[in-house]
Amino acid sequence: MSPARTVIRNGLVVTATDEVHADVLIEGERIAAIAATGSEAAHAWTAEAEYDASDCYVIPGGVDAHTHMELPFGGTFASDTFETGTRAAAFGGTTTIVDFAVQSVGASLREGLDAWHAKAEGNCAIDYAFHMIMSDVTEDSLKEMDVLVEEGVTSFKLFMAYPGVFYSDDGRILRAMQRSASNGGLIMMHAENGIAIDVLVEQALAAGRTDPRYHGEVRKELLEAEATHRAIQLARVAGAPLYVVHVSAEQAVNELAQARDMGLNVFGETCPQYLFLSTDNLAEPDFEGAKYVCSTPLRPKEHQAALWKALRTNDLSVVSTDHCPFCFSGQKELGRGDFSKIPNGLPGVENRMDLLHQAVVDGHISRRRWIELACATPARMFGLYPRKGTLAPGADADVVIYDPHDSYVASAATHHMNVDYSAYEGKRLAGRSRTVFSRGTPVVDRGEYLGRAGHGAYLPRATSQYLI
Amino acid sequence: MSPARTVIRNGLVVTATDEVHADVLIEGERIAAIAATGSEAAHAWTAEAEYDASDCYVIPGGVDAHTHMELPFGGTFASDTFETGTRAAAFGGTTTIVDFAVQSVGASLREGLDAWHAKAEGNCAIDYAFHMIMSDVTEDSLKEMDVLVEEGVTSFKLFMAYPGVFYSDDGRILRAMQRSASNGGLIMMHAENGIAIDVLVEQALAAGRTDPRYHGEVRKELLEAEATHRAIQLARVAGAPLYVVHVSAEQAVNELAQARDMGLNVFGETCPQYLFLSTDNLAEPDFEGAKYVCSTPLRPKEHQAALWKALRTNDLSVVSTDHCPFCFSGQKELGRGDFSKIPNGLPGVENRMDLLHQAVVDGHISRRRWIELACATPARMFGLYPRKGTLAPGADADVVIYDPHDSYVASAATHHMNVDYSAYEGKRLAGRSRTVFSRGTPVVDRGEYLGRAGHGAYLPRATSQYLI
Amino acid sequence: MSPARTVIRNGLVVTATDEVHADVLIEGERIAAIAATGSEAAHAWTAEAEYDASDCYVIPGGVDAHTHMELPFGGTFASDTFETGTRAAAFGGTTTIVDFAVQSVGASLREGLDAWHAKAEGNCAIDYAFHMIMSDVTEDSLKEMDVLVEEGVTSFKLFMAYPGVFYSDDGRILRAMQRSASNGGLIMMHAENGIAIDVLVEQALAAGRTDPRYHGEVRKELLEAEATHRAIQLARVAGAPLYVVHVSAEQAVNELAQARDMGLNVFGETCPQYLFLSTDNLAEPDFEGAKYVCSTPLRPKEHQAALWKALRTNDLSVVSTDHCPFCFSGQKELGRGDFSKIPNGLPGVENRMDLLHQAVVDGHISRRRWIELACATPARMFGLYPRKGTLAPGADADVVIYDPHDSYVASAATHHMNVDYSAYEGKRLAGRSRTVFSRGTPVVDRGEYLGRAGHGAYLPRATSQYLI
Amino acid sequence: MSPARTVIRNGLVVTATDEVHADVLIEGERIAAIAATGSEAAHAWTAEAEYDASDCYVIPGGVDAHTHMELPFGGTFASDTFETGTRAAAFGGTTTIVDFAVQSVGASLREGLDAWHAKAEGNCAIDYAFHMIMSDVTEDSLKEMDVLVEEGVTSFKLFMAYPGVFYSDDGRILRAMQRSASNGGLIMMHAENGIAIDVLVEQALAAGRTDPRYHGEVRKELLEAEATHRAIQLARVAGAPLYVVHVSAEQAVNELAQARDMGLNVFGETCPQYLFLSTDNLAEPDFEGAKYVCSTPLRPKEHQAALWKALRTNDLSVVSTDHCPFCFSGQKELGRGDFSKIPNGLPGVENRMDLLHQAVVDGHISRRRWIELACATPARMFGLYPRKGTLAPGADADVVIYDPHDSYVASAATHHMNVDYSAYEGKRLAGRSRTVFSRGTPVVDRGEYLGRAGHGAYLPRATSQYLI
Repeated sequence: MSPARTVIRNGLVVTATDEVHADVLIEGERIAAIAATGSEAAHAWTAEAEYDASDCYVIPGGVDAHTHMELPFGGTFASDTFETGTRAAAFGGTTTIVDFAVQSVGASLREGLDAWHAKAEGNCAIDYAFHMIMSDVTEDSLKEMDVLVEEGVTSFKLFMAYPGVFYSDDGRILRAMQRSASNGGLIMMHAENGIAIDVLVEQALAAGRTDPRYHGEVRKELLEAEATHRAIQLARVAGAPLYVVHVSAEQAVNELAQARDMGLNVFGETCPQYLFLSTDNLAEPDFEGAKYVCSTPLRPKEHQAALWKALRTNDLSVVSTDHCPFCFSGQKELGRGDFSKIPNGLPGVENRMDLLHQAVVDGHISRRRWIELACATPARMFGLYPRKGTLAPGADADVVIYDPHDSYVASAATHHMNVDYSAYEGKRLAGRSRTVFSRGTPVVDRGEYLGRAGHGAYLPRATSQYLI
Repeated sequence: MSPARTVIRNGLVVTATDEVHADVLIEGERIAAIAATGSEAAHAWTAEAEYDASDCYVIPGGVDAHTHMELPFGGTFASDTFETGTRAAAFGGTTTIVDFAVQSVGASLREGLDAWHAKAEGNCAIDYAFHMIMSDVTEDSLKEMDVLVEEGVTSFKLFMAYPGVFYSDDGRILRAMQRSASNGGLIMMHAENGIAIDVLVEQALAAGRTDPRYHGEVRKELLEAEATHRAIQLARVAGAPLYVVHVSAEQAVNELAQARDMGLNVFGETCPQYLFLSTDNLAEPDFEGAKYVCSTPLRPKEHQAALWKALRTNDLSVVSTDHCPFCFSGQKELGRGDFSKIPNGLPGVENRMDLLHQAVVDGHISRRRWIELACATPARMFGLYPRKGTLAPGADADVVIYDPHDSYVASAATHHMNVDYSAYEGKRLAGRSRTVFSRGTPVVDRGEYLGRAGHGAYLPRATSQYLI
Repeated sequence: MSPARTVIRNGLVVTATDEVHADVLIEGERIAAIAATGSEAAHAWTAEAEYDASDCYVIPGGVDAHTHMELPFGGTFASDTFETGTRAAAFGGTTTIVDFAVQSVGASLREGLDAWHAKAEGNCAIDYAFHMIMSDVTEDSLKEMDVLVEEGVTSFKLFMAYPGVFYSDDGRILRAMQRSASNGGLIMMHAENGIAIDVLVEQALAAGRTDPRYHGEVRKELLEAEATHRAIQLARVAGAPLYVVHVSAEQAVNELAQARDMGLNVFGETCPQYLFLSTDNLAEPDFEGAKYVCSTPLRPKEHQAALWKALRTNDLSVVSTDHCPFCFSGQKELGRGDFSKIPNGLPGVENRMDLLHQAVVDGHISRRRWIELACATPARMFGLYPRKGTLAPGADADVVIYDPHDSYVASAATHHMNVDYSAYEGKRLAGRSRTVFSRGTPVVDRGEYLGRAGHGAYLPRATSQYLI
Repeated sequence: MSPARTVIRNGLVVTATDEVHADVLIEGERIAAIAATGSEAAHAWTAEAEYDASDCYVIPGGVDAHTHMELPFGGTFASDTFETGTRAAAFGGTTTIVDFAVQSVGASLREGLDAWHAKAEGNCAIDYAFHMIMSDVTEDSLKEMDVLVEEGVTSFKLFMAYPGVFYSDDGRILRAMQRSASNGGLIMMHAENGIAIDVLVEQALAAGRTDPRYHGEVRKELLEAEATHRAIQLARVAGAPLYVVHVSAEQAVNELAQARDMGLNVFGETCPQYLFLSTDNLAEPDFEGAKYVCSTPLRPKEHQAALWKALRTNDLSVVSTDHCPFCFSGQKELGRGDFSKIPNGLPGVENRMDLLHQAVVDGHISRRRWIELACATPARMFGLYPRKGTLAPGADADVVIYDPHDSYVASAATHHMNVDYSAYEGKRLAGRSRTVFSRGTPVVDRGEYLGRAGHGAYLPRATSQYLI
């Protein structure tokens, strides 16, 4: 339980726009006030609990807008449950996730949403919300969209990839976009031309190119860019906003940049794996490349510069994880001898905040931009602002005392995600969350887990605040 | 004098990123704390002065990064002194101006700066700082740049227009940019191809086209765009950042957009006159068009949409006024029969915050973007952040209680600028500053001037915070 | 039968690159020589037949690379047979057509090709060749492509529109492109997103928007541009060249321009109807708009300027007719009350050369560009050069004596196409073919038909000469 | 003297658009007729002189639109006189040059033109024409432009580089462009920002960077691109066409491509040195780099691909030589210790046709494009068509029998230019001119010079045929 009053003193409070030396006062589950360190107002505060954040940053808890706990994929399930996954998130300084409920083909959105509520309820260490994956756009499911928006599930993911599973054709996409244009929902798009990719997959396998690295070769950059362009044009026809998930190819970024120059409500997200990993990893020997199989795939290293640039120019506005872990042993191995059978996904929910802080240290982004990309914008994009994503009076007291002088080596041996490898094994990261508060309650402190399954509450969401 | 403690209660605190219902506590000249309205922390505050901001916004005071008080131009002087101009600014909710000191050809930067200090000192109602206009780039003045940056004059304006007066050729521009690349200064550019324009001016006058509207015709959009492009390329050669002032043509905006897509440190400013006025005004009969003569000139109406779009996409990041008033009677009239003799400039320092709020009401920009364009970004761009431009603990208590439900009609009959006409005469504006604090002191309250000449302090500035 | 020797004297010989005053000597079916008018060499010629082309142009016969004689569509057939259609072509100065043989779903390419040979053989007034429409891309039909290329059917048309009829999905398109990359064939693309369009069609009809003009509204410009972009990207993935048929939207032209700036082997064709007609025609009352229903649809007038510009910049390189006539009475009328049931297509094979000459007179294109667009490039693009499309020693003697000083009014009352209306009814056209030779034989002379069904020979074609 | 009749049999006649097996009949100085090889018409010809071109190409003589014979530069003179230079041109298969007459500052165009006529008259082996370099744009020289256009000097070169020598500021450029817009002249532009470059030159020298390779470093790609962009915008303001000479930087090509996509009459020329040489040559040790000093400078190798692409897309339409030779010994050496004193220029008039044929062999361009770039387009661009640049009845009999199977090694030891080094020393070239006719007279045959000084006639030119 959260104490009545907590004060965090002497830190550098960093938000998406301000960096001030200030003390933060928490009353119950909310931030009550922020006062200049050393001011009379700050001096006057008393509290049951007091934390000294000298030499630390005080930042909003991270908002990871793209996770897949327990996702069924390719005959297996993502290895993190809501319990293990949200606990790992907390360790990594993330205090909100937005996970994807899945509509099955032939079933209603409601059934899918209910199933995901059942998985999450009572199990989460931190607050959570849901997007809805639409696998079956029909007259009925279109009507359900309106209801879900009202309830707080205000974003809907469609797939231009994975024919026969999640795939929607352009007609279904257009219909869903038209509906979102009228009900305020936001369409999220997996933009890859899956129909063309499947031809290349079949040809690669037929030619004996079965190793994990061929996963990256067949899912061509041009086919990500093409689908991105197509999604944008369909959104223009529908008069709807668009959010493109896990952008990895420079050419796709260019499509987004062009759309945004036109003033369109088109947004892009990328993920740490595209910023720090590359096709070099996919080519690791002994089937180790399978650890890095995800879609969109990792790209050649030179794409990283384009992604960093776009994160600075705001042509990409969010960094989420697409956390979707599968153990190497027993899960990734399903694809030995056939890369198309490797479950798609990487672990990352615990690493994101630190990887992006590393990017601050490396000079890719500013400290404020770190918070904007990882906290403020995802919260605003998905209707959680200002409860989440910022440190402001009245906001939820999701606060992280972040020590930029600490450092550690990423490793499966020490991480808290339920997966037998780390995508960043051996990489030294500068900075680490010291104390993590979720709605005023400390859930992690100096490496110790103080939280509990069920503390995390479901968050109905407003519609996106980025739409004009 | 400012009371020891002031509290502003019940308003909606709007900054560049947050909108929260909060009370603001001022201690002396600084903001001490911000607390959620209704929180225990807020309740606990006591203060000598208390303001109720119910139904109002509480916003940072405006930062106008482009004014020309008492500028000598074409044989006359801009009609506002620092005293009259800053008082008018305060009425309009602006609490900081950055004015342009002018180096004369043959003189040192120091002489120009000293002269402007002498004009301003003891006369200002609000805080002020200086940019430096370089009219004579020489080995000596290049060295002086370093000194000025150290002192707090961290930006330098060059002109690609006005040959024989302010004009610098591309070699001088390159040298100044190289210097700024090493000393941290920011080059501000008046981007018009003045050499080509002067040919067109001469041809127009020779052909008897002497009316004010020909001012707009000869200063062609393509020649603004060309100079903008050239300035960007020179900045790339020098490895220096660039800030382009008073952008008015869609084609120039496109050049900025292209540069920014490349990730360059290139920034653009526009002004309210380009957003609300057009060549239609320049064509007003009876020489009335002269009131609207400024450079870059007003453009055909269809350019306005491009400017609004760029303000949303951040291809333009600042709205300043380029306040440079000349009375119609006796000053603008110098150009009867020869548009090239009309002093260039418009009044506007008092109107900016309200015109941009009108743009919020009209749906062009969001409330937060209003504050970003008019307060936060100019402060950050010119090294005044976080003292100015935001409401944060520790910042200067430059605060405006803004009533969005008030309205009034712009008019020379009622405005406080020392000029005999209003560029927006008769235009009804929604919203108005009710109470304006400068460093904790109320200087305007409900239409009454409470300030004094000399309250305003000189602000040495840090270097731009927008540079990577 | 052609005389042994024919000479055409005193004309201005116009080809894609040269304009020379020269006499042309035909020996049998071929051009034997061209000599400067007045030269000794020219004087020395004697011939059985001599034509005086004073004040006339002597040009290559037109090559119309896109016709649909007797095409089955929507339960009816295009009203021109190979006999009537090629005779009308001859009257219009066109001496070669490339028509589209159609593969039916479930049938082989061979069956389709045989059927079209049967329709054409013995019936044509002028020479003809075939493209192949692939409606069913399968392993078998892919293999057949190689055979057809060997035989002289070297281009294959695919449709991104018309789901359930001609439509191929992106996977099938990719496979066909890959095949063409290896066998030298050229993929021709109908680029409209038919899947999305069908949604809009259904919605329009459901909303009672059944008039012909809604045909133009639902087939949106953005959906033509999108498909064009997609086809280009698929061609890049396949490493294949691409020819986009009947481009009508400015945005689609822009996609072509961008691809061509990259140096890709991407080509665009437009048609006279897009250059001279517009949505104004589609909106004609009393169902008259149905006369102008074709796909891609006519566009708003302002697109015409973009098309003319692209014809000058070579972003569009061919003007064909897409000749596919349906009588208003009994055929177009099938769509009363439901625009989606109107057979798609317009008559035009007789009008093309004169409409483009009118464009020369109007200043849109030069005389040489007229011949390039209408003769030389289509011949070269489709492997008929230098037999067709130019006037050169050794080429087929397909020659037109064209009188630029003649003029007439286009009308169904006088045209020779088998269709009860003219798309250009009442339009006065400057210039007219006076004498038309097909392989040395005069087939039309001063309005009189001298040819015969069966004179026209089938032309096996080489592969495209535009590929690098 | 030319025989009354000459016939060239059995060759492959290659022009910009056609490749036909044909015999060519010359009567006096003109091409009388072209007949299909083996036709009766061809058989019937008798002639005083007969050449067998079996296994050879028969092509138009080359048109080199950019040479500088005897140009005064940096205190010395280009080492080829009109006599030596045109003889070397003839050996290389070039039968027309357009050289640059130079107006000196303070002098009239007429004086410059007269001086150049005096240098050329009676000395040339092949036909020649003049462009006019304007060094001093004044009211008087603007008026003289009209007269020169009437006389047949229809193109005028301006310099954005070389301040104090050839340089014109933007106002002078604009005035000259306006004049050309009305008199039909064509402005040719040396597009480099010389004002900025001179700053960089001074800085380089001051820093001790005096070697030839710094010539390439200070003349930055961005400063070529900038000037190109600026010239285009000035041309748009003036409503005039523009021809940019010796384009070498990819970024400059991009500016041309963008302008041409807009449908502007903007044209670009490049030179063999930019296609085959690079900054690697400029960096050759022992001051050997000086041999490759020209402006615009050689660029890094990766620019070559962009230039070849642009030659294919027609964003560059002409390849000229900018032939301006200075001996290494005594001339280039003037710049030892100061690269800015190295005379700018390279020899090349003899090499162009063979280097471009090598490009055909290497697959960069097609055979027809070779003739278009080297013969047809320069002739058409500069008003010499159809007398020059093509093989057509009535054209001047400037004909080359070109043996594509011959080959040789370029070397100063064997070339005919009056300069002590070859820029292509040691490079093996495929193909060589066997017999070269100038107006019907053989001037070179199998390596023997048959011509004479004074055979070459001055060519007054029409205005450019590329303008709309």
